[in-house]
Amino acid sequence: MPRDISTDIPQTLAALEQVLGDRLSRSKPDLENHGRSESYFPLTLPHAVAYPTTTAEVSHIARICSEYRCPLVGWGTGTSVEGHALAIEGGVVLDFSKMAAIRSFYLEDMCVTVEPGLTREALNAELRDSGLFFPVDPGANASLGGMAMTRASGTTAVRYGTMRDNVLGMEVVLADGRVIETGSRARKSSAGYDMTALMVGSEGTLGLCTGLTLRLHGQPESVAAAVCSFSNLHAAVAAVQDTIQMGLPMARIEFVDSATAAAVNDYAGVSFPLTPHLLVEFHGTESGVAEQAERFGDIIADHGATGFEWSTRPEDRTALWTMRYNALYAIKAMRPGARALVTDVCVPISQLARAVEETQADLARASIPAPILGHVGDGNFHAILLVDPTQPAEFEEAKRLSDAMTNRALALGGTSTGEHGVGMGKLGFMEREHGDAWAIMGALKDTLDPLGILNPGKLVPPKSRLTS
Amino acid sequence: MPRDISTDIPQTLAALEQVLGDRLSRSKPDLENHGRSESYFPLTLPHAVAYPTTTAEVSHIARICSEYRCPLVGWGTGTSVEGHALAIEGGVVLDFSKMAAIRSFYLEDMCVTVEPGLTREALNAELRDSGLFFPVDPGANASLGGMAMTRASGTTAVRYGTMRDNVLGMEVVLADGRVIETGSRARKSSAGYDMTALMVGSEGTLGLCTGLTLRLHGQPESVAAAVCSFSNLHAAVAAVQDTIQMGLPMARIEFVDSATAAAVNDYAGVSFPLTPHLLVEFHGTESGVAEQAERFGDIIADHGATGFEWSTRPEDRTALWTMRYNALYAIKAMRPGARALVTDVCVPISQLARAVEETQADLARASIPAPILGHVGDGNFHAILLVDPTQPAEFEEAKRLSDAMTNRALALGGTSTGEHGVGMGKLGFMEREHGDAWAIMGALKDTLDPLGILNPGKLVPPKSRLTS
Repeated sequence: MPRDISTDIPQTLAALEQVLGDRLSRSKPDLENHGRSESYFPLTLPHAVAYPTTTAEVSHIARICSEYRCPLVGWGTGTSVEGHALAIEGGVVLDFSKMAAIRSFYLEDMCVTVEPGLTREALNAELRDSGLFFPVDPGANASLGGMAMTRASGTTAVRYGTMRDNVLGMEVVLADGRVIETGSRARKSSAGYDMTALMVGSEGTLGLCTGLTLRLHGQPESVAAAVCSFSNLHAAVAAVQDTIQMGLPMARIEFVDSATAAAVNDYAGVSFPLTPHLLVEFHGTESGVAEQAERFGDIIADHGATGFEWSTRPEDRTALWTMRYNALYAIKAMRPGARALVTDVCVPISQLARAVEETQADLARASIPAPILGHVGDGNFHAILLVDPTQPAEFEEAKRLSDAMTNRALALGGTSTGEHGVGMGKLGFMEREHGDAWAIMGALKDTLDPLGILNPGKLVPPKSRLTS
Repeated sequence: MPRDISTDIPQTLAALEQVLGDRLSRSKPDLENHGRSESYFPLTLPHAVAYPTTTAEVSHIARICSEYRCPLVGWGTGTSVEGHALAIEGGVVLDFSKMAAIRSFYLEDMCVTVEPGLTREALNAELRDSGLFFPVDPGANASLGGMAMTRASGTTAVRYGTMRDNVLGMEVVLADGRVIETGSRARKSSAGYDMTALMVGSEGTLGLCTGLTLRLHGQPESVAAAVCSFSNLHAAVAAVQDTIQMGLPMARIEFVDSATAAAVNDYAGVSFPLTPHLLVEFHGTESGVAEQAERFGDIIADHGATGFEWSTRPEDRTALWTMRYNALYAIKAMRPGARALVTDVCVPISQLARAVEETQADLARASIPAPILGHVGDGNFHAILLVDPTQPAEFEEAKRLSDAMTNRALALGGTSTGEHGVGMGKLGFMEREHGDAWAIMGALKDTLDPLGILNPGKLVPPKSRLTS
């Protein structure tokens, strides 16, 4: 925590306590809860956890942290897998869980304005009877503010886009406490720089999101799910490439490899063939999904798929998707006590087969279990590297495998992170991925946060801010 | 041209001539061609027009202009309607017409990398046999670089999005000559700030676009077009709102008012009823478009539409779309010799009926002809104000009407420009639309272009750069 040299933490916390009272927590369990991540990073305690309830309070907190140059790190549900919300230079974690209201429904405009601590499942529960839903589904029941700030996506991005496409506007508290609004409820605009897009994916380094307007979509009239298996990985991925290139409007198209199928069989007491699978979903009218399912059936038949079944009945759909729903738990259960290092590359569709095959060949030579699954319709896939936390050598091996995947993705014209974000895990790849544009990101950061108090040590090139 | 006080134009041009030879033009017709706009702004001559052929030359030009603090303004096809590319502080207009190649086809990835001077029609001609197309269609055969830099959209944005959604990456020359690459061919990424989105819509104030990777879409298997008329404006707009809220995947949904229908009748010798119309297009499979057309027919029947006809045959489609294809020419022919001041507001769909009705009531009291048409599926519409250029009072009235439309759109939660951009015409609304976020835009501009040489006087808050 080099920051402590110039930050007067006791003074900062005293000033914050004046504003927040007992909503500034310094209890050990609270600090520990906000020092953990869902990943392999070590426990990193902040000095305090703040629980604001209003935008005005967030602004006040930012002004105080600016005055004392105290690091300020936003926190949603703590489900980031790259350690975004860890206060690695100490300071204050700002937990948005008490800002979780729906501010306004704009159902005629197919959007809604929410506070950042609201989770996606809570939002969809509120929307259930409206005919609308919020589609972005990263798996975890993450907070919508956190999803925006990491540019999250998940299984439905192939159809509905990522947070980039589904955040229409934001309320943002800047480092100096100023509150700005970006975007509007209009469906498009050419009025100046796209400040919303600049904030989405900025990982709390440019400002703190205190409100966001989200695009909603009509609940599909009909949903069909399907599963099919392939004799080898190449056939499965080639089928995905053809499907995307044919322009079939897939709602989800997920890949799991044979190791994942085996894990799910053990975990859920089912008996999927031990081969690569695709699990897909179609959204549309009744006749539309039938047509899509038939066309998809034709495409995969050309690639030798077997066991193609599809259904629009909810109970059948759930059965078909058992594998995907249980995949992560099943994989973790393969090796009790292990920690999961989850990789996250995304490549151009034309490079997908090569990227997955080379990755699998690499992983087959490894000593640790590493099933592959992913949102392959976007070219995005993950290997789940199961590491025994008591064996440093395994962790080193996992890091090496992960780095090799990332370097391969960059060499193939892809990106180091499809949906998990930079956080702690991908910082080392930013320069290779962005070249001089990374320095520009650093300059933008310095402009909006000249004292470097917002989530320091993340996303942009390091610079000594102690002397600033 | 206050800039001249500190800019040594003769030295700048001498240095540029060393690089470009006779591709630096100072001929009067050339300066005049690059001093005009498609709008009401007065002729604004630059000092010279540069015709680079490579990114390296653009970089070299930027370095020279930085050295001598000479304004540098990008130019595509000159079809902007807000005067974006006018060199209002003098200096050099950089014409991209000699950088119009397709750099790489990535058809398997459904994208293509092009130079900025390529026009959208030229690109689609090259793509004709590929099964893919580039959908963004602002009407004019604009350059793709210009479309990106103004965040253009048009008739198909309701289905395929705007340039925001269809630019995957960019090559950008910064003010100091550095070349950065943004984005990639991967369909999504969470790797840092969205520099592509920051550049799209930046109107040449942050950098010069020297290459761009564009998302392509599958040519639809079947296209159906339809037209229908309504007894009054309210019914037509209410039908649009219902259609969008029902989630019908319209490929285009265009509104024209009765004045436009009358103009087209006169211009094209046809006999549409003198009422408001909707013109729509459906893209999909054969059965898909039939289903969409039927559903649309049901929706508009509820709003009393008449004359609903749809067809998938190309010759019928052209006949049905006569009104939209001819609208702008027909409107201009209503008043020979007039100049068109084209307004461009976009409001939330829930406010569309109110915005259009209040606008029409306002225009009905005006002394100048002002038909309304627009891409109403996005909430975006235009009034075409036909001004006699010899009558300053008419111009004043048109400005007053346009400003009233813009203020109304902002009051209704919309934006001052749906697709035309800020340029000269909307600068005065930026502070009201963005509040403190406009100052942040200015700070970002100062960071990327500290000398203020890139398209000075546009988009961001004015500041005296003569002293910088």
